[in-house]
Amino acid sequence: MIGTESLTDLYVEVQHFYARQMHLLDGGAFEEYAATFTEDGEFTHTPQQPPARTRAGIVAELNRFHQRFADDPVVRRHWFNMLKLDPLDDGAIAATYYALVVTTRPGRNVTIAPSCVVHDVLVREHGALLTRSRKVDHDLVP
Amino acid sequence: MIGTESLTDLYVEVQHFYARQMHLLDGGAFEEYAATFTEDGEFTHTPQQPPARTRAGIVAELNRFHQRFADDPVVRRHWFNMLKLDPLDDGAIAATYYALVVTTRPGRNVTIAPSCVVHDVLVREHGALLTRSRKVDHDLVP
Amino acid sequence: MIGTESLTDLYVEVQHFYARQMHLLDGGAFEEYAATFTEDGEFTHTPQQPPARTRAGIVAELNRFHQRFADDPVVRRHWFNMLKLDPLDDGAIAATYYALVVTTRPGRNVTIAPSCVVHDVLVREHGALLTRSRKVDHDLVP
Repeated sequence: MIGTESLTDLYVEVQHFYARQMHLLDGGAFEEYAATFTEDGEFTHTPQQPPARTRAGIVAELNRFHQRFADDPVVRRHWFNMLKLDPLDDGAIAATYYALVVTTRPGRNVTIAPSCVVHDVLVREHGALLTRSRKVDHDLVP
Repeated sequence: MIGTESLTDLYVEVQHFYARQMHLLDGGAFEEYAATFTEDGEFTHTPQQPPARTRAGIVAELNRFHQRFADDPVVRRHWFNMLKLDPLDDGAIAATYYALVVTTRPGRNVTIAPSCVVHDVLVREHGALLTRSRKVDHDLVP
Repeated sequence: MIGTESLTDLYVEVQHFYARQMHLLDGGAFEEYAATFTEDGEFTHTPQQPPARTRAGIVAELNRFHQRFADDPVVRRHWFNMLKLDPLDDGAIAATYYALVVTTRPGRNVTIAPSCVVHDVLVREHGALLTRSRKVDHDLVP
């Protein structure tokens, strides 16, 4: 594992880390969200696009992406589930899980899409989990 | 934490507590659901309304609320996710999480709404977790 | 519990087991999915139907069931939540949880249905969790 903790401890720590991370993102705290990545972290939220790199780059990309909601105000919630953890040779952890985006628009109309599989690499720095890379694959019928 | 358990133990205990609590609510066991609150517990399931207070008050409010389904029979399932736990100064635990209500109507038509953020305060009495207060905020576009 | 582990360890192990199990099913790895059942395992995915029995029988049933998608290509993801664990007299574990099936069709149109309550019996063989039986109840208005 990442250090000497048990798999149980790590699995729960990752669940809690993701909860805090996504409450930040969904609350619009983009700098705090970016700070949950390593300084050289990579974030690919849309397939076929190059990743945003570094915390500053992730913040810039989030600001750019959220411009689409300037004239379409929404509340978004990211739900993660069915989390798998696999150790990597370099001591990092591969985390693979399902994700859904729950979007509420005025009038409380709720849509749930897209359905995604997310591939993270997690590391520990100074005792804290950080995301080194995140790649989001949208479910697409072949 | 609430006592001397590890954060891992507490996080899992809260997950399990919520599973049992919501199976009770969704199964219509309102008295057993109310018994998962403290005797003086508060439950605010709809924003802008005063909370139901005490176990008896929570049962009464649930009976009142569910009258709306008397002529609209449904099966409802409450889903919780993205759970954050934070210790409070008095030894209680603040739990903050996302919630969705999955509603099945005749013909197996499924709707998922509203999307909520729930704020609980949890305490331990005689070894068991109990909800001291629950405040449900529905996602609303500002 | 199933052996001597703590309830915390078991609860997390079951979550992780289900994640791996359903990634296999959703990825079309039916033989690997069936291998997460005991050799004499039973799988009842549709109410009122007799269970598929044995690993070979489960694979055959999955191949039969998925023929419906031959002309309707989809990506399916199974989400589990609100997991309860209860020990049984014979040392096995009863696991009861909510499930949703997230289905993506061409154009990324996402539907989420049915809503289910699943009843599993889990056992440990040679150190690994296995599903001895699974019975899926679809939410139906009485």
